[in-house]
Amino acid sequence: MRFEIVARSPDTPARAGLFHTPHGSIETPAFMPVGTQATVKGLLPGDLVPIRPQCVLSNAYHLALRPGATMVARRGGLHAFMRWDGPMLTDSGGFQVFSLAPLRQIDDQGVTIASHLDGRKRRFTPASVMRIEEQLGADIIMPLDVCIGYPSTRPETELALERTHAWVLHAARARRRPDQALFAIVQGGMEPDLRVQAARALAAEPFPGYAIGGLSVGEPRAVTDELVALTAAELPQDRPRYLMGVGAPDQLLAYAAAGVDLFDCVLPTRLGRTGYAYTAGGKLNVARAALRAEPGPLDPDCACTTCTRYSRGYLHHLVRAGEPLAARLLSLHNVAYLVTLLRTFRARLIGDARAAPA
Amino acid sequence: MRFEIVARSPDTPARAGLFHTPHGSIETPAFMPVGTQATVKGLLPGDLVPIRPQCVLSNAYHLALRPGATMVARRGGLHAFMRWDGPMLTDSGGFQVFSLAPLRQIDDQGVTIASHLDGRKRRFTPASVMRIEEQLGADIIMPLDVCIGYPSTRPETELALERTHAWVLHAARARRRPDQALFAIVQGGMEPDLRVQAARALAAEPFPGYAIGGLSVGEPRAVTDELVALTAAELPQDRPRYLMGVGAPDQLLAYAAAGVDLFDCVLPTRLGRTGYAYTAGGKLNVARAALRAEPGPLDPDCACTTCTRYSRGYLHHLVRAGEPLAARLLSLHNVAYLVTLLRTFRARLIGDARAAPA
Repeated sequence: MRFEIVARSPDTPARAGLFHTPHGSIETPAFMPVGTQATVKGLLPGDLVPIRPQCVLSNAYHLALRPGATMVARRGGLHAFMRWDGPMLTDSGGFQVFSLAPLRQIDDQGVTIASHLDGRKRRFTPASVMRIEEQLGADIIMPLDVCIGYPSTRPETELALERTHAWVLHAARARRRPDQALFAIVQGGMEPDLRVQAARALAAEPFPGYAIGGLSVGEPRAVTDELVALTAAELPQDRPRYLMGVGAPDQLLAYAAAGVDLFDCVLPTRLGRTGYAYTAGGKLNVARAALRAEPGPLDPDCACTTCTRYSRGYLHHLVRAGEPLAARLLSLHNVAYLVTLLRTFRARLIGDARAAPA
Repeated sequence: MRFEIVARSPDTPARAGLFHTPHGSIETPAFMPVGTQATVKGLLPGDLVPIRPQCVLSNAYHLALRPGATMVARRGGLHAFMRWDGPMLTDSGGFQVFSLAPLRQIDDQGVTIASHLDGRKRRFTPASVMRIEEQLGADIIMPLDVCIGYPSTRPETELALERTHAWVLHAARARRRPDQALFAIVQGGMEPDLRVQAARALAAEPFPGYAIGGLSVGEPRAVTDELVALTAAELPQDRPRYLMGVGAPDQLLAYAAAGVDLFDCVLPTRLGRTGYAYTAGGKLNVARAALRAEPGPLDPDCACTTCTRYSRGYLHHLVRAGEPLAARLLSLHNVAYLVTLLRTFRARLIGDARAAPA
């Protein structure tokens, strides 16, 4: 799977790229909506098509527990199961193992957890997660990694990094499907030297792409900014860089400028379900009484179905009435907002690159 | 507004009709999806279009309390507010006044309630409800009526009927918009003689359509069957007949055969939200473990998006995972199922009428 850089910013490490996958090419920088359980919450693939997201995420851990990777494989894989025929990425679920499983025991070879659904014990190893992701059949697959909380001690961070590094290499040896791109994951907590060391070590291996994990877990924004820039700069120029789980609008723009190519975040749908909408003026609480009489759209510059068809007054009514359509229309807009934000960034970057002196 | 009968069953009182409204013609018999709060729960007008419902319902009582009829009028009326441009009917909310309001005081002139939303006192009269429905702007409007529970005594039934009759006539005098059809409502509880008396009295007045209210409130099915047939037979042949709030599939077919033209019911979306789907074999609990591995659609004969695109296994997964898409896809199917049931009934009736000896 080939990554092609089509333009570079004359001023920053930002670049515009194309990552070619068996289900189409991903125009980067791109925001990828999250469909943890084989559905972007409340939205159908048909709703997403006009928004043109470049790639949709799902989650190996969640789908392995329910309905089971074998069941998805029998339905023809994740693309056929959820009827999304564009590029898809599955996260291994390393983060979920550590955040959701009530009991977990980690050793050098993998992790044993009690399922958050039924308490039953399950064993995940770098190789078993590859088997799961091969059954799901996404275009980009992520290895099992060790996630730590914030704050963590230096020894905790070192041990997690050591295991993540070994597991990434183990996953690379265990994988079998040549039509899937396995990305490496850079961890290293909040320690700049460990981040640099991890990025360099993985950059030495021929991965088709590199992820930056373990950020936006509660640390101050300045720390995130520093570590993203530092890590991105250490990764190979000719491979895509994916910053995991970060998706606030200003962060997307800042980190795309720092040379990050791919982003995902559950925020747009989570905010939508709780009555909030992204706008150029910031996050809008749609339940606010002031919106009741507003005839205009959420965002006059947005081309999504919500903004082209419904007034703020109607959306306010739906939120106040507790109607399920509120979550759907706001989720749709929020996803469109982030996808469009980076599409516009990309178009401008290509324009700037053309205009720059050779 | 004109009702045209295009075919009559050679065997039963059933008929196929066209009710012409300013927003298009309603092909009857028809099932009308319910959009109580200016939205069919979880569905967009755009989702409904391929299902081709002939008319969508909304509710004057609910919208008067929130967001307020004046607010809807300022947004251009209900059609523009919720972006449904086909025929629409508003129920007065008589039923909701009696089922939702924690405190209500009824007299000959109207009803005073404490709002179920904020406890504030509101007064509804036959004339004030006409003003509300005129602001909402539906094509078919219903007068305020007095609904009673099951069982009720004969004197309670008589008093409610007397008031309903007076209020219907009062509404007819108070209404102003010539582009709206005010239907009369036949009450009379479970008393056959009162039903007949009410139907005859209202049939003597020139209403463009007649509703049968107060059934399917807990009475035995045989009683519903008898009263529907009895009442429908007393109503004018050349006007549409609307049976309020009844929508089980077998009842739609039975009562369409008895000469009922219009139906509504919240069941298809309510069942969808609780994980149930209509099928030719009966109501299906989509959470049942047996569906986990089923590759086929909910209903192989159904042309809705849910059935043409998604497997039972996927829908089962969504229900089990508590995903909002489950409610949406099952609601969509259930509405399509009932709409199609009566569309097919109508097509067959027209075919039978053509084939019958003249």
